[in-house]
This record gives sequence, structure tokens and C-alpha cells, in this order.
Amino acid sequence: MAFDFGPLFPAGTPAPAQRWTGAPKYNFTGGNNDPDALPLGGLMAAAATVMAREGRTLATYGLNSGPQGYRPLRDFLVTKLERDAGMMCTADDLLIVSGSLQALDLVNSALLTRGDTVIVEQDNYQGTLTRLAKLGVNAVGIPLDSGGMRMDVLEAALAQLQARGIKPKYIYTIPTVQNPTGTIMGEARRIRMCELADQYGVPIFEDDCYADLVWDGERPRAIYAISHSDNVIHIGSFSKSIAPALRVGFIAAPWSIMSRMLALKTDAGSGALEQMVLAEYCAAHFTEHVPALRTDLNKKLDTLMEALNEQFGTAAEFEAPKGGIFLWVKLPDNVDTLKLYQAALKEGVAINPGPEWSTDKVNTLSRMRLCFASPSHDEIREGIALLADICRREFGVPERSGNVIERRGQE
Amino acid sequence: MAFDFGPLFPAGTPAPAQRWTGAPKYNFTGGNNDPDALPLGGLMAAAATVMAREGRTLATYGLNSGPQGYRPLRDFLVTKLERDAGMMCTADDLLIVSGSLQALDLVNSALLTRGDTVIVEQDNYQGTLTRLAKLGVNAVGIPLDSGGMRMDVLEAALAQLQARGIKPKYIYTIPTVQNPTGTIMGEARRIRMCELADQYGVPIFEDDCYADLVWDGERPRAIYAISHSDNVIHIGSFSKSIAPALRVGFIAAPWSIMSRMLALKTDAGSGALEQMVLAEYCAAHFTEHVPALRTDLNKKLDTLMEALNEQFGTAAEFEAPKGGIFLWVKLPDNVDTLKLYQAALKEGVAINPGPEWSTDKVNTLSRMRLCFASPSHDEIREGIALLADICRREFGVPERSGNVIERRGQE
Repeated sequence: MAFDFGPLFPAGTPAPAQRWTGAPKYNFTGGNNDPDALPLGGLMAAAATVMAREGRTLATYGLNSGPQGYRPLRDFLVTKLERDAGMMCTADDLLIVSGSLQALDLVNSALLTRGDTVIVEQDNYQGTLTRLAKLGVNAVGIPLDSGGMRMDVLEAALAQLQARGIKPKYIYTIPTVQNPTGTIMGEARRIRMCELADQYGVPIFEDDCYADLVWDGERPRAIYAISHSDNVIHIGSFSKSIAPALRVGFIAAPWSIMSRMLALKTDAGSGALEQMVLAEYCAAHFTEHVPALRTDLNKKLDTLMEALNEQFGTAAEFEAPKGGIFLWVKLPDNVDTLKLYQAALKEGVAINPGPEWSTDKVNTLSRMRLCFASPSHDEIREGIALLADICRREFGVPERSGNVIERRGQE
Repeated sequence: MAFDFGPLFPAGTPAPAQRWTGAPKYNFTGGNNDPDALPLGGLMAAAATVMAREGRTLATYGLNSGPQGYRPLRDFLVTKLERDAGMMCTADDLLIVSGSLQALDLVNSALLTRGDTVIVEQDNYQGTLTRLAKLGVNAVGIPLDSGGMRMDVLEAALAQLQARGIKPKYIYTIPTVQNPTGTIMGEARRIRMCELADQYGVPIFEDDCYADLVWDGERPRAIYAISHSDNVIHIGSFSKSIAPALRVGFIAAPWSIMSRMLALKTDAGSGALEQMVLAEYCAAHFTEHVPALRTDLNKKLDTLMEALNEQFGTAAEFEAPKGGIFLWVKLPDNVDTLKLYQAALKEGVAINPGPEWSTDKVNTLSRMRLCFASPSHDEIREGIALLADICRREFGVPERSGNVIERRGQE
């Protein structure tokens, strides 16, 4: 008789996972990248070179670079972060982690406990919101406009929390290509956020994992670079700029919290081969690869927006993001995207329903996030056409397009 | 002024890590492997082949194999585990993780909560003991003899706990090349452990991460293979058989607990490049590489035992292990290995003091664990000579060796 593990699970154990049944045919979810834009030749050459030169260090945990990760990769990041984000840091300020998801977990482990409060952007990365919920942490959502998190509302929220005796543990922001809104916070707001953080004694948690994907390559300085008070934890990733399956991200942080995260990081380091290959590839080719990737992704965004205009007409509202891999779309108010998600998935179209990407579950019910990096141009067109059909069937919108009505009129 | 993160840390935060200052010259700690035995050419060829064939899937999280890990690596493990350990499992029963450390964390997260009790081998892997302590879990240590965990004491402990109304969450064992004792539990004890587990309704957590390194290649069936009641969680690793820096391990477990661990594993998968390279390499070369590695390691063990006999004489007692990468050494009772550890580290010799590797902190005070895979034969000889000098200076043992006395007599 099979042993019953059920009674052994602690209270609060998450629901069991379902068995994986394969990827949907039209996948507009997840941070997957464009397989055609992957710099495969460069990565292969880098793998051959770095393994031939120093592959035997794979026999040693941490490649003899210590617990903060492969030193040449940190050295590359020091250069890159100064060049691209204005950040002045050293290799000792950096920790290589297994994707920015491990960065989120480490920062949260170091700072948060049940009942804590943090401040976040109202529309937000689902993985951040689910992590906070699982930890029993109260996430106060600050609305965004086209310039990112609104500083007037942030100021009011900080004042209100202070009046209630609550000091938030951090202000979490994705300032550069915000997820899911795609907005970029300008430098003035970044400076203002630093002033407010100083005034209220709250650190800033800056998640910059999409910052390489600004279409024109111009981005504001990182908040980490702007702050004068060593109160910013900055995280980033190679998932969006190179390849998500590699699972390599990083944390830049002051030693007072870095040393705590190191104490909590008991996994004996992140994958060494990937760190080696990335360091070797990026030192020589990052600055040539990323602009090509951006051009590729921008074209896919164009295809997605064209397909939405064609299939949904005015029923799909959106602002073209200035970079990234996703579009935040508003459908008519009667569309419940949680239901649309279920109906679409049955027919092989995967979308992110709005309420899963916001602290405001009500006003995002007719929103959806569409990722455009991974599907081909044809898949984008076919998938959006199918999604429009399903949405029409379920919710009566969009109305039939001109073409279809015309054809039906001829019958 | 620098921001002070101190007041933000939750109660119970571990002490901060110290800055890394480089590896000790003579390092007898850690699961590092022999760099000369690393199959570098094979891994490089595998990397080139697998990347050329399917490298573009790196653009997709999980390589389109789903959350349980790269399918060809799981397929290899299905074959390997049946051939080597008698385990009948399918790819669906396997989860690829970032080293067996993540396996420990996932199993513990799924099953344990503060105040729980588990049963472990008395002398034990430090990482297991520190994890349990951090979780606030009571670890009941069962003594070992040359045949591994003693089943008579296990039976008595289960009965005593039951009498006190305590049901342990699991029985944790490293049955094949136990860490640190190097013992191998025979099949009769494995069968007895399964009977006791059934009788008391307690699952077994089998950590088999050294099982590939039995000198003669002959090992008893895994406990997972012996149990008839789907109550065994089995974990393993490529750290010891191929390379620790890769950070690839696995869990074989019934779906009822696998599905819970999947729900808790929110890292979007382990490093893909490493899974791909391992699958490609191991399918063709695992069975030729591992015997060569074992021969290499066995020679290093011989060098270590010779050096200990030469330098420590009868002051160092040990039983030659039947496999693995470490030796569990008893020094005279007046030697405090916690102090020896500190003194030796100052002179560039790193050892594992016994109390960190046992639930019995008193009777292991004069014990130490010495890892022999990573240092060269010369480093082993020099490091042990230096350790003997330091031990003599600190504790008066070993007495001066014959050679030295003779020379001094001639002065």
C-alpha cells in the first residue's frame, strides 16, 4: 500500500503542482526569449574557449572564486553596470545568483518576516506578489502612470504608514521597463524616490532585470547609482539579455546586507559552466548582441500591436512600451481575463490575466499581459486571431471585424 | 551616511558571513573533486554537440522539458538508477535540482516545521545538521557501526518516540558511503529499515550522493528499490561523480510529495547548460568515467592513510572506507579538534572538526573529517605533515616521529 505523505505536510503547505502537459501552442506568457535571437554561435565559442582554458576548476565548488560567484563574471558586471547604469561598484559588492528569482528570495529572506509591510508598484510582476503573499507580507501598491510609479502617491503612502506606526521594509520597484506596464521611470522621479527613502528611512529594492531591453539603448541611471546613502539593493539578470534557461542573475548590495544574504545562501553557488560561458561571451560580445536583440524584439512588438489592432480593433487598448518583452493590454470592461485565460488555454493560447499581475485585483480584471519575445511572427498573428475569436465567443467583444462581416454579407 | 540595515533583519537571522579570503593551501574540507580526474575533454565535446543540436532551446525556461528538468538527463537517470541501484522509476518520478543541497532544502520545506523530530545517523553531514538546527527541528541521532546505522538502536528509538507520542517526520540516511564514517549499510539492514519504517509509519529520506564512488563498483540496492510502500525519497548528485561546481542533483520521489516539492520550487529550473552537457556526456561516457575516477580517488586515500600513519603513527585511528572522498579520523582524547581546526587554518591547513559532523558533540571532539579528493598527492603529504606539527605543538600528540628523534639524538 502506498504511503500517505499527506498528514506530514506542515500547515500552510502550498497546493500540489499539476503534472506538466507541455507548452501551449501560442504562448504569450513567461519570460521566454526569441530562440532565433539567441547568440548560439557566440555562446558555443565561449564555452569551448573557457572550458579549454580553465575547465578543470569545475572540480572545485565556486570555481575557486568564493561564495559570491565566478570572478570574471563579476568583473564584467562591474564594467557593464558603470557603462550602462552609472553604477560604481566593485566585484565585492556583487553576488551571482540563480536568476533574479533567487535574488528576490534572498532579499526577502534577509529582510522580511510575517506581518511586515513593503511598498510595491501596483501593477507588478506576479512572482514578486506571490512571494510576498506566501511570506505573509502586506504589499502596499502604488499606482503608475506613463512615467512609472507615482511619487506623489508614494509620499502619501509613506506618510500614512508612518502615522500608523508602520515602517515598510523596502520600496520595491522595477523602474526600467516596468513589469507589466513597460514604463520607464525618469531620472527626476528616481531622485525623488531616493529623497523619500532617506526621509522615511526605508531602503529601495531595485529590480532592473529588463533594463537592457530599452529600444533606443538609452536608460536613466540606476537608482543604485543615484542614491547617496547605500540604501539600495539592485538586482539584475542575464535571462532577458542572453537566455532565461541559463538561470544567472546578480545582486549588487552594501556589505551590511550582502553578508546576511551570503549567510542565507546555502546552495554552494550557482551553475559554474553558465557563469563561465556568460563571462567569456559577454566580455567580448554583450555590447554587439544586445542592440541586435532589441531590434528583433521591437519588430515582434510591432507584429503584436498590428495583430491586436487588426483583430481587436478599438477593443484592445495599450501604450507601446519603450522596451521589454511584454505588452499590458486593456480589454473592454465586460471581459474577465481570468475566464478568458481558462477558455484560451483550452484552445492552446496562453495569456497572463491582469489580476495576477497587480495588487488591484478589481481594476485589472479586464487587463492582460502578452509576452511577445518567444512566439514567431506567424504564431503571434495566428495566436492573436484565435484569442480574438475566443474572446468574441465568450464576451461578445471584439465585434466581428470588417472583413468577416463583409464576407458574411456576401453569403 | 550609510543606511543601517541592521534594525530591519528579522529575529533569528543567521550571523553575517565573513569576507572570503581565498582557499586554504592544504584543503581537506568540502566535497571538491580531483581536477585531474575531471573528464574535461568529454564535457567539452558534449557541450559542443548538444549546443549545436538544440542550443536554441536555451531561450525557453526549462528547455521545454517542464519544471522537472531536462528530459534527456532524467532519461539517463532512469537507466542509471535501475542499472546501479536497482531502482525502477520513470522520468516523471524524477526532479532535477541545483545539487543535492537544494534537494535537502526542498524535502525539508515540504515536510518539516519548527518543533518536528527526525531520525538521523549520529555522525552526519554537517549541511544536514545545520539545516535541521536552523529549522528548529529535533534530530535524534542513531549510532553507527562498521555496517552503518544500527537497526537495534533505530528500533528502540522509534519505540521510545512512539511511547512519547512523537512521530518522526522521516528517517534520514546516507546508506552508501556514509558521510563522514564512509560505511556502507548492507542489504539486510536496508530491508530491516524498510520494515521498521512501515511498522511505525515513518518515511525514509535516502541521500545517495556518494553511491557512485564505492571502490569495487558493487553497491547494495537503494532503499528506494527495496521498499514496497512508496515511502522513500531518494536524492543523488553529479557533484561527486562528475564535478561539484556544476550544481546538478536529483530527487526521486512519489508524486504525492513530488507535487508538493514542485509547488515549493519557484526558481524556474536549474541551470540548463549544465543539464544538457551532463545528459549528453553521461549517456555515452558515465560508465567509463566513474571507474577511472574511483581508481584515482582510491590512490589518494592510500596516500592520505600512508601520510597519517607516517606522521601521526598510532595517534590517528581510522578504518579504511569502502569508497568516497573522506576519512573519519580519531585522534587521542586530549585533542580538541575545534581548537586544532582554528590553529591549523592559521597555517593554511583546513580540516573538518568532528563536533560539526555529529549529533554527539562530546564524543566526536577528538574526531576530524579529512577530504582527500581535491589536494594533490604531494599536498596530502605536506598538509598532513604540517597538521601533525601543529597538533603536536598544541596538544603534545603525536609524539615526535622516530626519524626526528633519531636525528635529534645525533646532535
